[in-house]
Amino acid sequence: VPPDPEATVRVALLAIGDELLSGAVDDANGSWLAARVTEGGAEVVARQTVPDDLQAISEAFVHWSERADRVISTGGLGPTADDLTFRGVAQALGVPVQLSPEVLAGLEARARARGTELSENQRRMAELPRGAEPLSNPVGAAPGLWIDGRQWMVLPGVPREMRAMFEAHRHRLGLTEHADRRSYRFVGVPESELDRWVAAAGLPDGVQVGFRNVHLENEVKLWAFGSNAKARLDQAEDALRSSAPAAWWTEALEVTVGRRLAQRGETVAAAESCTGGMVLEWLTAVPGSSAWVQGGVVAYANRVKVEQLGVKQGALESFGAVSEAVARAMAEGVRDRIGADWGISTTGIAGPGGGTPDKPVGTVWIGIAGPDGSDAELLRLGGDRQAIRIRTVQRLLAAVGSRLGFDPNP
Amino acid sequence: VPPDPEATVRVALLAIGDELLSGAVDDANGSWLAARVTEGGAEVVARQTVPDDLQAISEAFVHWSERADRVISTGGLGPTADDLTFRGVAQALGVPVQLSPEVLAGLEARARARGTELSENQRRMAELPRGAEPLSNPVGAAPGLWIDGRQWMVLPGVPREMRAMFEAHRHRLGLTEHADRRSYRFVGVPESELDRWVAAAGLPDGVQVGFRNVHLENEVKLWAFGSNAKARLDQAEDALRSSAPAAWWTEALEVTVGRRLAQRGETVAAAESCTGGMVLEWLTAVPGSSAWVQGGVVAYANRVKVEQLGVKQGALESFGAVSEAVARAMAEGVRDRIGADWGISTTGIAGPGGGTPDKPVGTVWIGIAGPDGSDAELLRLGGDRQAIRIRTVQRLLAAVGSRLGFDPNP
Repeated sequence: VPPDPEATVRVALLAIGDELLSGAVDDANGSWLAARVTEGGAEVVARQTVPDDLQAISEAFVHWSERADRVISTGGLGPTADDLTFRGVAQALGVPVQLSPEVLAGLEARARARGTELSENQRRMAELPRGAEPLSNPVGAAPGLWIDGRQWMVLPGVPREMRAMFEAHRHRLGLTEHADRRSYRFVGVPESELDRWVAAAGLPDGVQVGFRNVHLENEVKLWAFGSNAKARLDQAEDALRSSAPAAWWTEALEVTVGRRLAQRGETVAAAESCTGGMVLEWLTAVPGSSAWVQGGVVAYANRVKVEQLGVKQGALESFGAVSEAVARAMAEGVRDRIGADWGISTTGIAGPGGGTPDKPVGTVWIGIAGPDGSDAELLRLGGDRQAIRIRTVQRLLAAVGSRLGFDPNP
Repeated sequence: VPPDPEATVRVALLAIGDELLSGAVDDANGSWLAARVTEGGAEVVARQTVPDDLQAISEAFVHWSERADRVISTGGLGPTADDLTFRGVAQALGVPVQLSPEVLAGLEARARARGTELSENQRRMAELPRGAEPLSNPVGAAPGLWIDGRQWMVLPGVPREMRAMFEAHRHRLGLTEHADRRSYRFVGVPESELDRWVAAAGLPDGVQVGFRNVHLENEVKLWAFGSNAKARLDQAEDALRSSAPAAWWTEALEVTVGRRLAQRGETVAAAESCTGGMVLEWLTAVPGSSAWVQGGVVAYANRVKVEQLGVKQGALESFGAVSEAVARAMAEGVRDRIGADWGISTTGIAGPGGGTPDKPVGTVWIGIAGPDGSDAELLRLGGDRQAIRIRTVQRLLAAVGSRLGFDPNP
């Protein structure tokens, strides 16, 4: 519970669109907005997805307006026939829509600049609920809305436009900047163990806790609001540190590995079989990673393992591609051939086919070769093809972090 | 609107958990369930995310029970202190929770098999709302619930367990198997143009349409319910085909490219700079891709481009790494060295750093080398680092599909 509940702004988030209800698309906007609102010291009391239906849109605004201090909606502002948010808001307010000459002029100017004309549907984007204030869109055509008496903010569904518009107009929402948060990440420690750890530590009042799981990574998040948020989180962290079940990461694995490599002035190269490029893709997703990632080889075919990585044909024949010997040879080979301080490797059976009684789907070897030699580890992973690939990357990066002596519990 | 509204089962989906409201986690369960429910001929009338709060959970069940025929919840069933769903359901029903000896025995047996004891919190997982029927969990400890009089299904939040439990018990929901759907995907055709296309085609009654955007890919989805769903979608497709703005894909780009390669009996290798492994990661995400993906080289450092791909040092010095000459040399080099029918490449500036006035962030060259020679294309992409990488992969795979002569509008 936040320290001062009567001062906490309560926010409801509405995501409007049939495509979000049919399962075709995830509501990434809602997660992004929820994080911004939470960081701003407000509380998201609900997220609701609403169909492209006038009555449903209107009802949702009315329903959540009674239960929250602010309602923020995304989606349904475009030029297509199923974009009904403006009309739904008008119905909720009990007012008609009317053409805004100012908004229309903006849309027309934008169309002219592109050498096109506004279609009938596009002109409808200028029909606003009477009394609503248009919110400028820094990066697109469709304006948003601000309903001052109700504290409703109406944003577009295109994530880039939604984010730019939210940032431009967030001052209207009365968010503060006084929240603080901490993250403690573990690979391979069960959530139930983390739950016992947090419960036993006895966190100070006003510190909220959340758990998050992404395959093998379990994260404990703490957050607090108000001007003494940092002090309370420091106190919580002291309590947790004395009984931590394992060393923790505070950032994404690939960020931690990259930071540690940069501190040591070292580089890495990867040889990937079952992960097919995912290890390198994660490592290079970090801005600035060209300072520590040299590159690597995706050796999907066995021939490529031999020709590009120097794996011995005899090792493939004696032990198979999914073996300790081949994982080590791949790691050593990529370290040597690409020319990096560290060579890392994956070889395994991600499925759905390819399993045998000896080596069922989920059998994976990961290898690490460094200045002091190489080793490999056998993983037995559950899940489908994509889960096995992701879990392999998590276990490999966690192992690399340990080998690099990342600063535990910093 | 479905053809027979009075027969359509209306479903509300509740996702329970503070972590979903703080933006820490996406509700992937809801999207998955929404797709299953929609395919089953039912209509998802709302998705709501509910905090770990007794009152909020109880209110949400009551609210949606009045507006939908079925309520399905996910999350809040675990052993941690913030898992309150069973108690929230009990409150909504106006009944107490009581220990189920049968469920407790199952939990104890599971704990014994692992050599552990049940904690106090874990015992609470056996406290069910009075009268609720436990739903067996094929892959985990926590049972779900079925509330027969209300048609509520209560599922766990762990995706693997939730999916297995839903499949095991979906027959209770009265879903049909009579829905059909179609997908038409385009890379680089704006949504507004697709909207005009669909509107002009004049779709038959009972065919629903949705639009979906993932970076440069725009998808039009059609679906229909009932026993004549297929016939109506065939009719819709005939109308669309005669005026299509471009050739369409019906599956993911990487699936289409893989299928086409398999049909031709050809293979591909990739040389990646700015995408850092993402091209190969997408291609190898497809089950069976070892039949057409040989592997490739992630050449993040320029030295790796020279040593592993045979790019001429002179080309790097004269034109820079982000150039037509280097993109072609990378594609030719990886085709030759890895030994594949097709070599494909990416080299560009994904940012946030590294841009220049001549080559701003978003400047990317993609290359394709095949049996008939090589070519390259300049892309100027918007968005952040990850968006630029994803858009590069989309444009490259679309270009490869065209070069492979994929069967347009099949």
